[in-house]
Amino acid sequence: MSEATFEPLSSTRRKTSPALEQILYQKFAVLDHGYVAVMDYMGTDSAIVQAARVSYGEGTKHIQEDAGLIRYLLRNMHTSPFEMCEIKLLVRLPIFVARQWIRHRTANVNEYSARYSILKEDFYIPRVEHMAAQSASNKQGRGETLDALQAAEVQDRLGKHSKDSYALYEHLLNKDALEHEINPNRQGLARELARVVIPVNFYTEWYWKLDLHNLMHFFFLRTDEHAQYEIRAFADVMLHQIVKPWVPLAIEAFMDYRKNAMHLSARDVYIASAVASGEDLTQVAQPYGWMERNADGTLKGNRERGECVEKLAKLGITVSFK
Amino acid sequence: MSEATFEPLSSTRRKTSPALEQILYQKFAVLDHGYVAVMDYMGTDSAIVQAARVSYGEGTKHIQEDAGLIRYLLRNMHTSPFEMCEIKLLVRLPIFVARQWIRHRTANVNEYSARYSILKEDFYIPRVEHMAAQSASNKQGRGETLDALQAAEVQDRLGKHSKDSYALYEHLLNKDALEHEINPNRQGLARELARVVIPVNFYTEWYWKLDLHNLMHFFFLRTDEHAQYEIRAFADVMLHQIVKPWVPLAIEAFMDYRKNAMHLSARDVYIASAVASGEDLTQVAQPYGWMERNADGTLKGNRERGECVEKLAKLGITVSFK
Amino acid sequence: MSEATFEPLSSTRRKTSPALEQILYQKFAVLDHGYVAVMDYMGTDSAIVQAARVSYGEGTKHIQEDAGLIRYLLRNMHTSPFEMCEIKLLVRLPIFVARQWIRHRTANVNEYSARYSILKEDFYIPRVEHMAAQSASNKQGRGETLDALQAAEVQDRLGKHSKDSYALYEHLLNKDALEHEINPNRQGLARELARVVIPVNFYTEWYWKLDLHNLMHFFFLRTDEHAQYEIRAFADVMLHQIVKPWVPLAIEAFMDYRKNAMHLSARDVYIASAVASGEDLTQVAQPYGWMERNADGTLKGNRERGECVEKLAKLGITVSFK
Amino acid sequence: MSEATFEPLSSTRRKTSPALEQILYQKFAVLDHGYVAVMDYMGTDSAIVQAARVSYGEGTKHIQEDAGLIRYLLRNMHTSPFEMCEIKLLVRLPIFVARQWIRHRTANVNEYSARYSILKEDFYIPRVEHMAAQSASNKQGRGETLDALQAAEVQDRLGKHSKDSYALYEHLLNKDALEHEINPNRQGLARELARVVIPVNFYTEWYWKLDLHNLMHFFFLRTDEHAQYEIRAFADVMLHQIVKPWVPLAIEAFMDYRKNAMHLSARDVYIASAVASGEDLTQVAQPYGWMERNADGTLKGNRERGECVEKLAKLGITVSFK
Repeated sequence: MSEATFEPLSSTRRKTSPALEQILYQKFAVLDHGYVAVMDYMGTDSAIVQAARVSYGEGTKHIQEDAGLIRYLLRNMHTSPFEMCEIKLLVRLPIFVARQWIRHRTANVNEYSARYSILKEDFYIPRVEHMAAQSASNKQGRGETLDALQAAEVQDRLGKHSKDSYALYEHLLNKDALEHEINPNRQGLARELARVVIPVNFYTEWYWKLDLHNLMHFFFLRTDEHAQYEIRAFADVMLHQIVKPWVPLAIEAFMDYRKNAMHLSARDVYIASAVASGEDLTQVAQPYGWMERNADGTLKGNRERGECVEKLAKLGITVSFK
Repeated sequence: MSEATFEPLSSTRRKTSPALEQILYQKFAVLDHGYVAVMDYMGTDSAIVQAARVSYGEGTKHIQEDAGLIRYLLRNMHTSPFEMCEIKLLVRLPIFVARQWIRHRTANVNEYSARYSILKEDFYIPRVEHMAAQSASNKQGRGETLDALQAAEVQDRLGKHSKDSYALYEHLLNKDALEHEINPNRQGLARELARVVIPVNFYTEWYWKLDLHNLMHFFFLRTDEHAQYEIRAFADVMLHQIVKPWVPLAIEAFMDYRKNAMHLSARDVYIASAVASGEDLTQVAQPYGWMERNADGTLKGNRERGECVEKLAKLGITVSFK
Repeated sequence: MSEATFEPLSSTRRKTSPALEQILYQKFAVLDHGYVAVMDYMGTDSAIVQAARVSYGEGTKHIQEDAGLIRYLLRNMHTSPFEMCEIKLLVRLPIFVARQWIRHRTANVNEYSARYSILKEDFYIPRVEHMAAQSASNKQGRGETLDALQAAEVQDRLGKHSKDSYALYEHLLNKDALEHEINPNRQGLARELARVVIPVNFYTEWYWKLDLHNLMHFFFLRTDEHAQYEIRAFADVMLHQIVKPWVPLAIEAFMDYRKNAMHLSARDVYIASAVASGEDLTQVAQPYGWMERNADGTLKGNRERGECVEKLAKLGITVSFK
Repeated sequence: MSEATFEPLSSTRRKTSPALEQILYQKFAVLDHGYVAVMDYMGTDSAIVQAARVSYGEGTKHIQEDAGLIRYLLRNMHTSPFEMCEIKLLVRLPIFVARQWIRHRTANVNEYSARYSILKEDFYIPRVEHMAAQSASNKQGRGETLDALQAAEVQDRLGKHSKDSYALYEHLLNKDALEHEINPNRQGLARELARVVIPVNFYTEWYWKLDLHNLMHFFFLRTDEHAQYEIRAFADVMLHQIVKPWVPLAIEAFMDYRKNAMHLSARDVYIASAVASGEDLTQVAQPYGWMERNADGTLKGNRERGECVEKLAKLGITVSFK
């Protein structure tokens, strides 16, 4: 975590978040050269409550505490009051992460432009412990970690490729001529063209501004274990080190009703009740191949059935499909 | 259901939905003078699958059936393929319903304008069985149905008020002069001003166009039992009579993973496992007033605790807080 | 302008706008019972510049002044830096104005809900000078002002209708019973139903929060002379009394390049150059009925042709179609 | 232009666009390996008219032709009826173009995912005539074309770098082992990690679906001469070969009122009228450095002043600042 503070104190009649003021402009390090820093914000937990009270008026008189009201709102999908909080972040992140991130459309973005400016030689090399083989079972995911020797070789290759790419970029720009008057007669390729050789592990930078409702949706998707590790690293830092101190009541409710909640499908509920009443599951539960069998009569593997068994186990319900 | 068919058959190489073609342009009646009609559409279940396959490429080869893929997408919050289907509806609805409806921002709307045109004398009067008293327990909702005598009186008052309002509207417009040359020397008030006397039970009309992902979110919120009856009446007709025939696989998945799903909070999950392991609930479960007691030692009512008990009961888990 | 100040001073390291701090929480009166008040904000002109500099990097070194950069951005449709400023307003406005306003979808809204709470007896009566007849030439607009006698009659009728409507509303709610124990045995109609008798000239209230780019688009459309007077009254106050002090450089550029700019169609440009080169306009300019004639050979009226002549006149170019 | 037709004819009661049906599913080639193909659509010019008529009702009776109404709508910024048309495209485009393109947020996107699938060896090499040096005057743009020798060298370098990058990608994936059982004991790196070596000139592919209003805004910005050539190449093909045949009236109006229109700032209008009335420009026109002078008394260059002179010249107005 770096520390740079570059705004003097001034006085305001706006609501302030003392906890967020503490870390304003600080760069929280993520990955090898990335960071996230809060550059501005609007509102606190109290803005959520205030907005809810304009909607519900007298209707909310009886919910006395702010915490209770915020929990009620999130539990019942009354999400618009959470849109009253806004945050602006400065993020330095690899291009391949930026490409996933930008899919969250309900945000304002200003990105460093390689049409106007020259990129820096900053690129991402995964650490050995994040260097994983392709998962055999899961098409989108990582499997076991590479063995140390191969991981080191991969790091080496990535580093060399990144440096070679940047050297070519500089050559195309004729950067030597610009800076040191070497080859002054050679023309530099337009920046917008020279950049096409840059691999997607290079870093870019942007301001990203959005409201708390959309930010929590980002957290819901991007702190999930199925999100790619590199974007998850950013999401985790933002959730726990930045947004939680800013709006602690909203995040407590988010953890309880979204992140750590369990979604049971109509089918899952049905299975649970069938187990409780002792029904024969082979008769009741046959959606979409749950009960397909191999030639020898054993059940074929089925991902959704597996997930159902796992979820119900967490509730203390033992289900056995045979 | 009315029947008007006003486009001739033509040939297309686009995907068509035979079931939706059957009901194209038909007005499905809702409330006393409202309706919903499909005016155009793009895509079918197959468009969802096609979009998912461009994303997952070879990764989806093993999920053989379309139904299985659509279920996988919805279960795992991969919602963007559902945005590939689009539908355009013509809706006639009371203004107070339109005011709730328009809060769904991710849609295209063209509404009848009372600045340009003169409103018709169409207004909504609730049927006796929908005429409910204010709920005592729920600030936003309806309680028991009014007794027949009072319901009839309310209908009567609403009808008279609506007619009086319209008569005033016509008087302000000097409509007689426009149509029958009575009072030709009196000026008609500008339409945009005359309309301000119209109560919100009058009907308006609009084209409403949006993608299937956002439409399913509309259904999730507006077919809920806490939604006001009048908007629910529209949502129910749209869900069951229009969208289900159009994209049956998507709606089947929606019913299973969204509408009829059960959301357990982290707390709910914890209670269930504590019950299974025989823990003393008075020791473990005390968030936000769950265990507050009256002077005589009995538990105070608590809405979230009540919801927890009710949900777990559906799973065959009996919880007793004492 | 009212005065209420209800937040104490605190210190912040965020950028502040001293001019906006001065008027924070003040209610600027609009129409007879409406107002606009700034409740929170994020950023100032400097946030626009900062965002542009992250995009253009070194590329902006040569544009030394902030004003020059902001003007450059707006002139060249680089609108995203303007999204870095955010403002939250509390607005009290008639329902028919709210219905136009809400069409601006890129904003966050929390509105007073008449499902939960009881509406106040606040309704809009136009002043005599805003009481206009329907325009004969313009289907959407107002023509000349009503004569004083008729205007007074209309005000009278509107006032009486509004009071009658509210009396019915109270009767339906059985408000007397709630407050004074009169008719305690009669049931009060559910709030969500009782409100349907309320005409659209009654006031509602909401928090409205959006970024500066979208707010300037709102100003472009709603301060236009074709916008209905009542929404224009709000837009004018917001533009000149609130947003101009907040981001003076952005608004100066907006006035120059948007609000007071002139749009010439390709056709307009062609006509101007044809005039300059002395071409025969009857030969060159015949799009879409511009040169249609009456039986006697004179030109038929044509709105777009008229607008062209008027715009070019402002540039000192005299065009005469014959 | 390729030809693949992969849907049989079926019959529909939806509005069809015969011109668009002709080119449905055809791949229009763009750049060296890119293309655009229409995969589906909803509505035609008539849908715009139909939506406008629901808004304006009787108010539009007098505008008899569809063309006239569409022109009126666009001229007066009534953009919502254009949102009633929707189109779905399949686009193959280089990653650096995709990164500009995705900034248009009001669209639905499903992109090929390199987390799930293996990228193909398709990369973009600019043609000699598009290989330009960095502009000296314009920070974001291209200057003169590189000389032939240097252009050939750049092509060569780009090609070699792209091939090397892809070879490394295959090595990391251990693709030989997957396909030919060479090095079967070496682990393949997870796809989501191996892809980080891919430069941004490689092609990706996506479905892109949006409404006509937002598409025209894309055209306005991306067919502009300041847009990067590579994205402009896509925008031009889409505008002229796809969207113009689909909605000819809307595009004719767009060309006249947007693309080929001229925007005069308040300052430009003032200058024109000052010229017409013979005022001394050195006295009147001094915004933001327009009249700054060098030591020898000559005017300093000023971009906005230059643009003003150029625009007024097109109107036949000669302005001379001295």
